[in-house]
Amino acid sequence: MSEISLRKARSIIKTTLAKGREMDLKPLSVVVLDAGGHIKAFEREDGAAAGRFQIAHGKAYGAIMLGMPGSAQMARAEQQAYFMAAVNGVFGGQVIPVPGGVLVHDKRGNLVGAVGVTGDTSDNDATAALAGIEAANLVGTA
Amino acid sequence: MSEISLRKARSIIKTTLAKGREMDLKPLSVVVLDAGGHIKAFEREDGAAAGRFQIAHGKAYGAIMLGMPGSAQMARAEQQAYFMAAVNGVFGGQVIPVPGGVLVHDKRGNLVGAVGVTGDTSDNDATAALAGIEAANLVGTA
Amino acid sequence: MSEISLRKARSIIKTTLAKGREMDLKPLSVVVLDAGGHIKAFEREDGAAAGRFQIAHGKAYGAIMLGMPGSAQMARAEQQAYFMAAVNGVFGGQVIPVPGGVLVHDKRGNLVGAVGVTGDTSDNDATAALAGIEAANLVGTA
Amino acid sequence: MSEISLRKARSIIKTTLAKGREMDLKPLSVVVLDAGGHIKAFEREDGAAAGRFQIAHGKAYGAIMLGMPGSAQMARAEQQAYFMAAVNGVFGGQVIPVPGGVLVHDKRGNLVGAVGVTGDTSDNDATAALAGIEAANLVGTA
Repeated sequence: MSEISLRKARSIIKTTLAKGREMDLKPLSVVVLDAGGHIKAFEREDGAAAGRFQIAHGKAYGAIMLGMPGSAQMARAEQQAYFMAAVNGVFGGQVIPVPGGVLVHDKRGNLVGAVGVTGDTSDNDATAALAGIEAANLVGTA
Repeated sequence: MSEISLRKARSIIKTTLAKGREMDLKPLSVVVLDAGGHIKAFEREDGAAAGRFQIAHGKAYGAIMLGMPGSAQMARAEQQAYFMAAVNGVFGGQVIPVPGGVLVHDKRGNLVGAVGVTGDTSDNDATAALAGIEAANLVGTA
Repeated sequence: MSEISLRKARSIIKTTLAKGREMDLKPLSVVVLDAGGHIKAFEREDGAAAGRFQIAHGKAYGAIMLGMPGSAQMARAEQQAYFMAAVNGVFGGQVIPVPGGVLVHDKRGNLVGAVGVTGDTSDNDATAALAGIEAANLVGTA
Repeated sequence: MSEISLRKARSIIKTTLAKGREMDLKPLSVVVLDAGGHIKAFEREDGAAAGRFQIAHGKAYGAIMLGMPGSAQMARAEQQAYFMAAVNGVFGGQVIPVPGGVLVHDKRGNLVGAVGVTGDTSDNDATAALAGIEAANLVGTA
């Protein structure tokens, strides 16, 4: 299934934001992309900065395009910065290689999309995303 | 107030999509921008094409940047096509000058954002948007 | 002299805006570029739409890059729209070919810059620009 | 209030430039953006390089889009260069992460815009900006 349903996407966003409130994080922004990397749903909490959509999208989009979650992208960036910089370029500037970009699979192992979260530290962003994905009965790889 | 609340944004999207179901429209995609043109929330209904985010965004973004709702942009495009083509260029390709891009003001006349709807005919997109905005106790100019 | 002084640029903007108030125009936005096409000064009146800088700049920048004031660019666009569309492309989307982009020369005929005005009708934009340029003891070609 | 008034913007620029003269800085360029990141006013002093608008704008724009003043962006860039490089990419090259991009709030804590100053050292640029913002009875965060 490459088209994550809007119902699942809403659920992921809802629980991700709830996790953020539970962890007392800064205002979060959450995007859900389908397996083709196309935007399914998005919400930016009140108080979040104007450009948070682009950051959230960059995390999730990079995960889909590279098949690598944020933590793996960050490891690569730290090891070979010029490669990830070039990757950013080849994708029109749309890749942000840090935690918070989480690949989403269904229970049978099919890629169904990606979630991008931004607003707090990258690690906390990723934690919130994983909570949202799990509550939607899907599998997140951060 | 330039920051339309997430609560209002969700309400607009919810009612816009409900209007679409009531009118039996094709799957819709709805974006809400704040008064600065920044994305607050978005939903793409199941069955909607992959690129509908960009179309919805282009309608709403053009409305904010030009201070002109979709119908006015369309009138200008029909009268002076090269001007609107140049405007699309100067905004990095981000302006789609047809109905469905609706400016949103509060009851005191302050601009609070814009809604972009795509999926059915432009006129039906605009009708659905107006319903969503009205139900959120705001004023839409299509 | 290719570097129009900041003093002259401020004067042009001040008188252009005053002319707009005198003509009871909609809120105007005025940019002054030097002869190299680089931004010297800019003001956007309260109530003007968010994207008016880009429109004003597009008018003035096109005038400098083509050596053609707005009226001449518009005549070309009406006669050969695909050419002006291609010109917009080759300049990265930065050319808006309508009145309001005015070339500025000194009294000895040297190009010193360009002014771009937007906010009301293109013709009124150009009229306001000419008033500002004239009051700065320079020569405008609209 | 997201729309910083033109009156306030002019005042900020005037005092920022005066501070630059008082500190005997190199020619400065100053941009004022509203809370949505849209250009309200700009001035480039005589003798300043041709491209200073883009640098000033990049400092202020990044501050608005990230919700982080220049000093914070610089700290992030020094700690995680590939992240800020990617952020520059995702915002179309429009983010310059060094001091001189100053967030502006009113006395009640509402974000009203950002100021970008360039021309001397980044720290001196920031100092001049803070003087301009303070004289306009607003609060700057550098």
